[in-house]
Amino acid sequence: MSHKSDIEIAREAKKKPIQEIGDKLGIPSDHLLPYGHDKAKVSQEYIDSVQKNETGKLILVTAINPTPAGEGKTTTTVGLGDGLNRIGKKAMICIREASLGPNFGMKGGAAGGGYAQVVPMEDMNLHFTGDFHAITSAHSLLSAMLDNHIYWGNEQAIDTRRVTWRRVVDMNDRSLRQITSSLGGVSNGFAREDGFDITVASEVMAILCLASNLKDLEKRLGAMIVAYRRDRSPVYCRDIKAEGAMTVLLKDAMQPNLVQTLENNPAFVHGGPFANIAHGCNSVIATTTALKISDYVVTEAGFGADLGAEKFMNIKCRKAGLSPSAVVLVATVRAMKMNGGVAKADLGEENVDAVKKGCPNLGRHIENVKSFGVPVVVAINHFVHDTEAEVQAVKDYVKEHGAEAVLSRHWAEGSKGSEDLAKKVVEVVDAGNANFGPLYPDDMPLFEKIETIAKRIYRADEVLADKKIRDQLKLWEEQGYGNLPVCMAKTQYSFTTDPNLRGAPTGHSVPVREVRLSAGAGFVVVVCGEIMTMPGLPSKPAAENIRLNDAGEIEGLF
Amino acid sequence: MSHKSDIEIAREAKKKPIQEIGDKLGIPSDHLLPYGHDKAKVSQEYIDSVQKNETGKLILVTAINPTPAGEGKTTTTVGLGDGLNRIGKKAMICIREASLGPNFGMKGGAAGGGYAQVVPMEDMNLHFTGDFHAITSAHSLLSAMLDNHIYWGNEQAIDTRRVTWRRVVDMNDRSLRQITSSLGGVSNGFAREDGFDITVASEVMAILCLASNLKDLEKRLGAMIVAYRRDRSPVYCRDIKAEGAMTVLLKDAMQPNLVQTLENNPAFVHGGPFANIAHGCNSVIATTTALKISDYVVTEAGFGADLGAEKFMNIKCRKAGLSPSAVVLVATVRAMKMNGGVAKADLGEENVDAVKKGCPNLGRHIENVKSFGVPVVVAINHFVHDTEAEVQAVKDYVKEHGAEAVLSRHWAEGSKGSEDLAKKVVEVVDAGNANFGPLYPDDMPLFEKIETIAKRIYRADEVLADKKIRDQLKLWEEQGYGNLPVCMAKTQYSFTTDPNLRGAPTGHSVPVREVRLSAGAGFVVVVCGEIMTMPGLPSKPAAENIRLNDAGEIEGLF
Repeated sequence: MSHKSDIEIAREAKKKPIQEIGDKLGIPSDHLLPYGHDKAKVSQEYIDSVQKNETGKLILVTAINPTPAGEGKTTTTVGLGDGLNRIGKKAMICIREASLGPNFGMKGGAAGGGYAQVVPMEDMNLHFTGDFHAITSAHSLLSAMLDNHIYWGNEQAIDTRRVTWRRVVDMNDRSLRQITSSLGGVSNGFAREDGFDITVASEVMAILCLASNLKDLEKRLGAMIVAYRRDRSPVYCRDIKAEGAMTVLLKDAMQPNLVQTLENNPAFVHGGPFANIAHGCNSVIATTTALKISDYVVTEAGFGADLGAEKFMNIKCRKAGLSPSAVVLVATVRAMKMNGGVAKADLGEENVDAVKKGCPNLGRHIENVKSFGVPVVVAINHFVHDTEAEVQAVKDYVKEHGAEAVLSRHWAEGSKGSEDLAKKVVEVVDAGNANFGPLYPDDMPLFEKIETIAKRIYRADEVLADKKIRDQLKLWEEQGYGNLPVCMAKTQYSFTTDPNLRGAPTGHSVPVREVRLSAGAGFVVVVCGEIMTMPGLPSKPAAENIRLNDAGEIEGLF
Repeated sequence: MSHKSDIEIAREAKKKPIQEIGDKLGIPSDHLLPYGHDKAKVSQEYIDSVQKNETGKLILVTAINPTPAGEGKTTTTVGLGDGLNRIGKKAMICIREASLGPNFGMKGGAAGGGYAQVVPMEDMNLHFTGDFHAITSAHSLLSAMLDNHIYWGNEQAIDTRRVTWRRVVDMNDRSLRQITSSLGGVSNGFAREDGFDITVASEVMAILCLASNLKDLEKRLGAMIVAYRRDRSPVYCRDIKAEGAMTVLLKDAMQPNLVQTLENNPAFVHGGPFANIAHGCNSVIATTTALKISDYVVTEAGFGADLGAEKFMNIKCRKAGLSPSAVVLVATVRAMKMNGGVAKADLGEENVDAVKKGCPNLGRHIENVKSFGVPVVVAINHFVHDTEAEVQAVKDYVKEHGAEAVLSRHWAEGSKGSEDLAKKVVEVVDAGNANFGPLYPDDMPLFEKIETIAKRIYRADEVLADKKIRDQLKLWEEQGYGNLPVCMAKTQYSFTTDPNLRGAPTGHSVPVREVRLSAGAGFVVVVCGEIMTMPGLPSKPAAENIRLNDAGEIEGLF
């Protein structure tokens, strides 16, 4: 067991040159575009060249509803990837990139934790390979071209009250949430209301993560709706002629980033869309490429399984033609206890009853995931104070609910601790029992899609939406957007829209506040609660203590 | 002579792996942080390790006042660097990075032109190694922390009407020049007037280019004035506690970027501050490092010699302890003709009289540069239609004015064409006659510094400034800023503040509209005309035609 912090462990990592990591996957070094000695992008030529390879097996790591106790979804993703390599499998992991801005509010995060991490940790919390900066640039270019179009005569007859394209910056800056722009007279344009979101909330991010290649990227960018005319007809990005230059700005950002785990196993870290107003998964290009160059690919989805796995299945897998072979559902004894009513301060004490009381949250996620036709393995991510009786209670519960739970100690022990989990996952995957299908067909009306998710995943009785929202959905159906999947934006802390309702509630209703069309990304966002797309900084931002020390090391970021 | 475009020539370049270029300079490959195969940053450890080396000779390339005919200052810098290598000297060049935003308005530029270019050209017009994105991030962090400070109680008692720290984005976006921020109620802050500049106009950029190391960078960032209180006392960046985190964001951006010329000679391309509200030179760290690892370093300064060379001498050299051994003043027959009154359309016809009539502009620059104690070589950057008689007229004029002019054909012929220029420069440098001294002492009052430049460089009769401006300068002197150099912001097209007055005018006056204190960068900006810090896009932006073609090549950017 380790007493070291994540950053201490990460700094002690014996990283191999990234060319050696690529070599494990058979990627020649001239097809690796290095960023320093420990990061590289994989060339498009190489990606093209492996398309005829056999496709590996895809494993999704998801979790119960998150609690303040922490579930360790990324940690388990990394631990499982290392475990698979340990038992001799050619495996890699695919996870998301971190957003820069939030690191200056709260402390930045590791990719994983303990002895199950991806490195270089510092870079991944800072500029990394510049992907998010490229997204900010591409987004900002369209913003500038849009207002420039209005300035020079507004040929497209954009209604400046109905510009839906907000600006972005990769920083937590609440003062930019709502602004008035183009002030200062004739030479600065036509004053209008405007605002900034954080970069990860950009539709460009969602598109980058769903596009299959640069051509597809350009087409999707062009299809984004940026404004409406007085007659409510949409103005597209392609009407502003921005999609070509945006694609040029994004051409390197589209290539997956290769890094390594602490155990020198390969990992793609690529893309990071919001998990509420977007689908919350790493890029399709990273996942599909990984599947062509390794036999097992472990990936993860944002938030708990009710949001993350649902979107992974209904949006990412459906649209990218992916078919997961197994789902690993991460649970912890601590989170079960919190779902069972224990306060965070009391988590250190054994409480088997509370564990049992919290298990129905896990049970419902197991049922939900199975409804996609994919077998489930529960990974109990081991924490120091977990007792044997508590762990056994989870195992027993899971067994009663038609799955198997495996205790995994990757956080403390690395792949040695996740060997059992890896073996179980391989057994389930290789049994070949998965029969994946999304939850609803493409041609189901949009409102029914929302109802299907609300009833079958959230177990709500009803969806509440006023006439305006229903009419909007019908209008989009008439305009040809009816076959899109829906992307639910609700709290991650509960199956319901009330973040305080833990466990497995029933009988609730899902109120829809707003619907938004992400026509380029290809989904309809259904907003069911307060969704913050531009965070603020706290009263004592972490940034105040971030600095380089005399040894040149970063302090305060972690 | 070539009929190929710059981009065609650049794409045909036989680039060597950047490790081989580093090897020429003796940089071990583990001290090169690669960005792809053709770009690398030099590690701080390596920079530290060469400090005890002998210092090479510094050569500044500057020019006459720019005309629409084009002078080819960067082209000559690159050509001279290649020429020096050709004649067996260990030489490298140091130039500025390009700003991203403007490429989407007008076409992007080569670094150099013809057969005297630095590559990779595409990257240098796009994200390059991410330096400018890092500057945007660091600047934006301070913006967010400043408004966050106000939001949470404004302990520093910032007067929100007197926030001088504007925001930045690396995009030509006129609609952000003037905004109202923090709208939308209590949770978004206190509404105030605000605005965005383009990233290159950020004081962070000027600081990055003047700082000697990361410690110095952090100190200078902390010293920036971001606002004033009601009592007019300044609020510094360090009062907001942002300088540590900003330094962390800038730690890689501080390292010089190594690339190569078409002839595989080494070049640092690093930093790119505005040449009006800042000093317009590449970074001090690039120049000083280059001087430790090569015998001759060729660098350039922005605009014509009246602005660029003056600031190079009085700001960069003074503050960094640099001492140039020679100045190469670039002139073209075409520009002489334009200074002599010929319209751009008529430049193709021989007109020796017009050349002679335009020469006094060149003559005055020669005199000015010599007044810094540095010998001058005039480089006549050869254009296709230049006749022998025209070239001879320039040569004769220069000879009469105490210097020597050398015809150089690097644009058409590469180093073969610049051999003569290189030999002449080596002769002048090795003669050791330079005796550099800045134009005014540190302890001269600020207004007298302005007068000194106006009278001795611009040859004006007087400086006009109202009492408010003179009082402001006195206040800064009382606050301890009197020993700073001044940074003149005026039109680059004339010695005067009227861009239409070509040649060598006298008898004019220099009106000072405004003065600004860049306390972190360490100069007082003297604004003598309309200075645009956020450009707009034209009615048909270049971006509309920028795209990736089917071969994956970028079209429309060049």
